[in-house]
Amino acid sequence: MSTAAVLVIGNEILSGRTRDANVAYLGAELAGLGITLAEVRMVRDDTDAIVEALNHLRRTFTYVFTSGGIGPTHDDITAAAVAAAFGVALERDPEAVGLLAVRYGAEDLNAARLKMADVPKGATLIANPVSQAPGFRVENVFVLAGVPRILQAMFDGLKGSLVGGPPQQSRSITLAVREGDLADGLALIQAAHPETEIGSYPSFTEGRSLVTVVARGIHGTRLDEALAETRALAKRLGAPVLDP
Amino acid sequence: MSTAAVLVIGNEILSGRTRDANVAYLGAELAGLGITLAEVRMVRDDTDAIVEALNHLRRTFTYVFTSGGIGPTHDDITAAAVAAAFGVALERDPEAVGLLAVRYGAEDLNAARLKMADVPKGATLIANPVSQAPGFRVENVFVLAGVPRILQAMFDGLKGSLVGGPPQQSRSITLAVREGDLADGLALIQAAHPETEIGSYPSFTEGRSLVTVVARGIHGTRLDEALAETRALAKRLGAPVLDP
Repeated sequence: MSTAAVLVIGNEILSGRTRDANVAYLGAELAGLGITLAEVRMVRDDTDAIVEALNHLRRTFTYVFTSGGIGPTHDDITAAAVAAAFGVALERDPEAVGLLAVRYGAEDLNAARLKMADVPKGATLIANPVSQAPGFRVENVFVLAGVPRILQAMFDGLKGSLVGGPPQQSRSITLAVREGDLADGLALIQAAHPETEIGSYPSFTEGRSLVTVVARGIHGTRLDEALAETRALAKRLGAPVLDP
Repeated sequence: MSTAAVLVIGNEILSGRTRDANVAYLGAELAGLGITLAEVRMVRDDTDAIVEALNHLRRTFTYVFTSGGIGPTHDDITAAAVAAAFGVALERDPEAVGLLAVRYGAEDLNAARLKMADVPKGATLIANPVSQAPGFRVENVFVLAGVPRILQAMFDGLKGSLVGGPPQQSRSITLAVREGDLADGLALIQAAHPETEIGSYPSFTEGRSLVTVVARGIHGTRLDEALAETRALAKRLGAPVLDP
């Protein structure tokens, strides 16, 4: 089974200034490709932290996706850190220079922008249809932009190259019940469906306790069975099932 | 300097079903207390993954905050995993049982709800003013609920016990400029202000390239100086400064 990790890079995430949006996107996309997102790490713009996290993740999971730090400013250090993690040099990529030259023209292609053409030796470029400055791949590591619109466009272009498995499917229902009243019965349903991952997520809306039960797995009919049993459990408990 | 890590626990985060809100909250709160959030990890509801991440983080950073997995259902395994990480037994805490008994009454205090009173031996409880079921602390690890409203209430109650430093302050201005045109000048400003962390965050609004420059540090006057220089740089570049 293919597994993946995401490494989010950037002080703005850890200072709380920016709320990450890329983990949820990549998690859902990877699940659809039958690849389990197993771990996420978020680190600051710090070479040692990036190198240490990346070297662990790339040796542990099938694929690693990084997000952030590939722009033209002084705080964009991802490419250099990835090169350090792989123990290779950072080299100016002629194809990337060409892409940037088309976008900016010779006059505006200054040293800062040319930095976006520097990639680790042996890397292959990842297309950026939004703003041209490319991402890149080294072995099982995909280095993507942090801006969600650009990350999504990059991922959309590269996902055909990933080897996944049967898509993870999910089904859910929401019950008007307190989680503690549902727990014992739900544990029995989980025990009877070891191949299905059953999650229980409480919320409180308009003074009412709700629980959303999510069944996740690769066999749709088994998910339907697990949720039918959950529906029967709700009936026994006298808990209304909310229409989606 | 005090440092912190956050460990987010839950399949729903990694599957993309739920977008985490706790990292941004904790990052901003910790910065205000003069504690640097240095790393975040997100793992699935998997004991081995929780134990491995927690044991690394608690030995590396001053404080660790976990989020998620402390409810009454079968997929809530955080307390047991934290006990395993510390190599201690999970024990039913009488004070926690008392809190749950007040909330639920003897009749509704079933086995599933009592599970929420099981904490690692030696833990101290963390108050939950929203729904009573407590979090807990073991050494430098604070185990909090995943529901943002509850996590925030728990953190609000415990933050007085944290030893931080001078609050991290931040100032920002937004310029109508392309990041690549700003980069060289901004790098010089960063070099002249080594004690100030200067970040550059591009965005695109109504067809216009914007860059928000964020200065962060403990000395407000130095942040003001760095941003005054950025303002002067913008003037030289002919880049409008947007009013906040």
